[in-house]
Amino acid sequence: MRLARPLENLIDQLLKLPTIGPKTAQRLALYILKMPPGEVRQLAQAIIDAQEKVFPCSRCGYLTDTNPCAICLDETRDKNILCIAEEASDIIAIERTGYRGRYYVLNRNFNLMGDNSLEELNLEPFIEQLETGAVKEVVLALNPDIEGEVIARYLAGIVANHGVKATRLAHGLPVGGDIEFADEITLRRALEGRKEI
Amino acid sequence: MRLARPLENLIDQLLKLPTIGPKTAQRLALYILKMPPGEVRQLAQAIIDAQEKVFPCSRCGYLTDTNPCAICLDETRDKNILCIAEEASDIIAIERTGYRGRYYVLNRNFNLMGDNSLEELNLEPFIEQLETGAVKEVVLALNPDIEGEVIARYLAGIVANHGVKATRLAHGLPVGGDIEFADEITLRRALEGRKEI
Repeated sequence: MRLARPLENLIDQLLKLPTIGPKTAQRLALYILKMPPGEVRQLAQAIIDAQEKVFPCSRCGYLTDTNPCAICLDETRDKNILCIAEEASDIIAIERTGYRGRYYVLNRNFNLMGDNSLEELNLEPFIEQLETGAVKEVVLALNPDIEGEVIARYLAGIVANHGVKATRLAHGLPVGGDIEFADEITLRRALEGRKEI
Repeated sequence: MRLARPLENLIDQLLKLPTIGPKTAQRLALYILKMPPGEVRQLAQAIIDAQEKVFPCSRCGYLTDTNPCAICLDETRDKNILCIAEEASDIIAIERTGYRGRYYVLNRNFNLMGDNSLEELNLEPFIEQLETGAVKEVVLALNPDIEGEVIARYLAGIVANHGVKATRLAHGLPVGGDIEFADEITLRRALEGRKEI
């Protein structure tokens, strides 16, 4: 197959992105060729700008273009409650729920199952916040997998040492989910956490 | 939800692309933030280059960065056989089969079901080729839908008027397909086109 070199190059670049397979890469590349030049430049510029201008907030780790980030600066937020997440993308999801506390994002790219040990978690800014005494509750919003479980238990110990309450997200059936297809661990947790109605 | 503005802008730009929904756009944008700056610039540049440097070949309409395109210039290709396709992406697919003739791509963005009429098809370069007498067979590789059918019949008439043979791609079961799930028209065509083994 002979493809024009700039087209082939674009397909190769798109293939490096997650969720983009060969067919999608080709389809996207051919679509980009048909886009108005102004829009193509906007897309290219948006890619460069996002990477150059967005960085983790030095206080909470959330992705921001101002430091501290808008969430840290928001005086209407509850300073008593601090939610710990593994990734900035988790915060985006939690924000949608209407949660109004603050956040702390653990190291990005931390991989306990790989080479990292728990001591490598960047916890200093978090512990400083605990030491101010403002935080009354730490919500451990770690992923419900083995790594999240290990990190949650480790952090719960640190939080307890500072005399602060540690909580975690409830396990149970996903809303709209089907009992028939729930795995046994989820279903057991849902039973254990059953509530009177 | 508060997102850093350059991040939000990138998500919006990605959302304009086909096959990219809100979740994928967010995932891609967050991934781009983590990419090494050099790779991000390469991606942005590849997008701009592809659109600036790739254009339809003036002879056959295939996407190229040289004019005429490499396929048109390839002297080892069979000049007697000309394959007509609706889109340059169809040619990419046909090239993979090992076909060694030449091509002609109809107008891009032609929409018979919309506002376009058959007279608006850009056929002049195609008819010029027919008139040279070099073409002995025209393969009508139009999509197997109503629009493709109408265009194929229209072109078959023009081809016949030049005393040239017009053929079309065979209909039948897709290889690896399941008879049980074949639609009745495809199955009928497969029966009509049955071959002795």
